[in-house]
Amino acid sequence: MLKDLAGKILGSHKPAIARGISLVENESKQANELLKMLYKNTGKAYIIGITGPPGAGKSTLTNNLTRLLREKGFKVGIIAVDPTSPFTGGALLGDRIRMQEIGIDSEVFIRSMATRGSLGGLSKKAKEACEILDASGKDFIIIETVGVGQSELDIAQTADTTIVVLVPESGDAVQTMKAGLMEIGDIFVINKSDRDGSEALGVALRTMLHLKMTRESDLEVPVIKTVASKNLGTEELYEKIDAHKKYLQANGKFENKRKENLLKQIAELVNNRLENKFWTSEKKNVLERKLGKISEREITPYDFVDDLFQSGI
Amino acid sequence: MLKDLAGKILGSHKPAIARGISLVENESKQANELLKMLYKNTGKAYIIGITGPPGAGKSTLTNNLTRLLREKGFKVGIIAVDPTSPFTGGALLGDRIRMQEIGIDSEVFIRSMATRGSLGGLSKKAKEACEILDASGKDFIIIETVGVGQSELDIAQTADTTIVVLVPESGDAVQTMKAGLMEIGDIFVINKSDRDGSEALGVALRTMLHLKMTRESDLEVPVIKTVASKNLGTEELYEKIDAHKKYLQANGKFENKRKENLLKQIAELVNNRLENKFWTSEKKNVLERKLGKISEREITPYDFVDDLFQSGI
Repeated sequence: MLKDLAGKILGSHKPAIARGISLVENESKQANELLKMLYKNTGKAYIIGITGPPGAGKSTLTNNLTRLLREKGFKVGIIAVDPTSPFTGGALLGDRIRMQEIGIDSEVFIRSMATRGSLGGLSKKAKEACEILDASGKDFIIIETVGVGQSELDIAQTADTTIVVLVPESGDAVQTMKAGLMEIGDIFVINKSDRDGSEALGVALRTMLHLKMTRESDLEVPVIKTVASKNLGTEELYEKIDAHKKYLQANGKFENKRKENLLKQIAELVNNRLENKFWTSEKKNVLERKLGKISEREITPYDFVDDLFQSGI
Repeated sequence: MLKDLAGKILGSHKPAIARGISLVENESKQANELLKMLYKNTGKAYIIGITGPPGAGKSTLTNNLTRLLREKGFKVGIIAVDPTSPFTGGALLGDRIRMQEIGIDSEVFIRSMATRGSLGGLSKKAKEACEILDASGKDFIIIETVGVGQSELDIAQTADTTIVVLVPESGDAVQTMKAGLMEIGDIFVINKSDRDGSEALGVALRTMLHLKMTRESDLEVPVIKTVASKNLGTEELYEKIDAHKKYLQANGKFENKRKENLLKQIAELVNNRLENKFWTSEKKNVLERKLGKISEREITPYDFVDDLFQSGI
C-alpha cells in the first residue's frame, strides 16, 4: 500500500503527494518508510526560499514567480509555512485565493503547513515535505516562510537561493534586522515599490549589503524592486535567481552545500532520536522539579546531569 | 587534594586558579569534580564579552577597562580566546605585554585559551573557565574573542553585555557583518577613532543599528568612540556597560537570561554526553565510508541512521 502511494507520488499524482505530506506532517510511522522509498528519486529540484515580514506580499510574489516558471515549462511545488494561529484563518483565506489562481494547474502543487505551536519540529517536517515534492518531479520548490524565528531561519537556510521580501515601511525593516534576515538573503526584493519610502529602503539595504556579502559567495547581493500586485519585476527576479543558481553550480558550491545539508540531516536524525529516547517524561519532571534548586546553586548542573544518566528513568 | 585546590581558588590564589583552568582546558576528569565543588560559589560575577575583527585593538581596550575597573575597586578576570595558529605566536607576545601592564595586580587574573583546532569544545571550556574565575571572587569577567566563527558567537552570547569593537577601515566592517556581529552587540565601539573614516563608520553603524534593537532590550544600542592607545573613551565605555547592566537587572531580564543559559547548559551537557557515547570511532568510520553512497542516493539517510542505531558498534 505504501509502495502504491510512493509509485503515485513518483507519477506526480496530486492526491498522493498530499497524502504523503500528511503522513510527514502527522509524524506517522509510515512517513519514514515512505521517505526511504522515495529517496533515490530526490535531489533534482532546485529549492527557493522566500521569506520576509507578514504583509510583505510573499504569497503574491510566489504566485507570480510560479506562473513565470510554468510559462518556461518548469514544474513547481510550493510549501507555505504559516505560523498563523488556527483562529485567525489567514492562511486558509490566502490558500483559497491562491488555489484559484495557480492551484488548478496540474503541474503546480501547493501545501500550507501550520506550526500549531510545534515550531521545533516544523523545520524537519518542511524539509521532508520538500523531499516528497522533489520525488514527484518538481523542477522548483518554493518554500515560503514568515521571517520571525529560528525555525524559519533554519528552513530558509536549506534553500539553494533565499529571497528576502521587504516593503517600504520602515517597521518591516526593523523586524528584518531583528530576525536576522540580513544574514541569509541571496536576493533582496523591495515589494510594493510604488509606495513612498521605497527609495530610502533601497539606500538603507544597499548600505547594509555593501558591508556584507552573501554567505557562500562573493557575488554581489542584488536588491530589486517589484510591484507584485501588478506582476511587475517578476522576470528580473527570475533572472537573479537563475544567475545565483548558475553561480553556485559553476564552482562546486552547490554540491558542497548539498553535502553539508546531508551531514547536518544525518546529525539531526541521530540527535533527535537520542534526545527523544533520553528525555522521558520522568526525566523532564525531574528537571522541572529541580531547576529552582540548580538556579539557587544547591545542586550543580554537573551532578544533576550525572544523576539523570544514572537514574535509569 | 582537589578539595585543597578548590579552597585555594575560593581564596583567589592565582596559581590555583591557573591550575583549575588547566584542568578544564585539558578536559581532565578532575575538571568536573572541581566545577561541582565550586558551583555554589558562582553566579556573582558580571560577564562582559569583547569581540571584533583582528587588529581592532580589543586587548588594549580590555587592558584600559581593567585598569578602570580596578580603580573602582572591582576584581577582574580576563579570558582571551585566541584562534591564532600556534605558529604565529601573536597571542604569546600580546600576553607578555599585557602581563607587564596589568597582570602583576594580585586581583587581576589573565588567561589565554587557544583553539588548537578544537573550536567545537572551546565554547564549553571558556564557559567553565568563567565559572572558576567567578568562584574565585572576580566582580567582572571579560571574555575577549576574535569575531570570526560560530563558536566565538556562542561564547559572546553567554556574556551579560557584549561589546563589538571596530576600526574605521571598511574591510573590518565587511568582516563584521559577515560574522554576524551586528546581531550580538549591546555596545559598539569605534576604536582608533582618530583615524580617517571614523565618521563614515559611525554613520554606517547608526544606520544599521537604527534598523535593529538589542536582542533582549528596547534600550538604544550605543555607538561610542575610543582611542585605546591613548586611553581615550574608557570612562564612557564603562558608563555604557553600567547602564546596560542596570537596565537588565531592573526588569528581570538579567535573571531570565541566566536561567535560559542554565537550561542551555544542561541540554548541552546531556547532548554532549549522548553524542560522545553514540559517535564511536567505528560509527564515524561507517559514516565516512558510506557518505558517498548516501550522496549518490544509493542508501537513504533514514536507513543509514536506522542501521547505525541497530549496529551496536
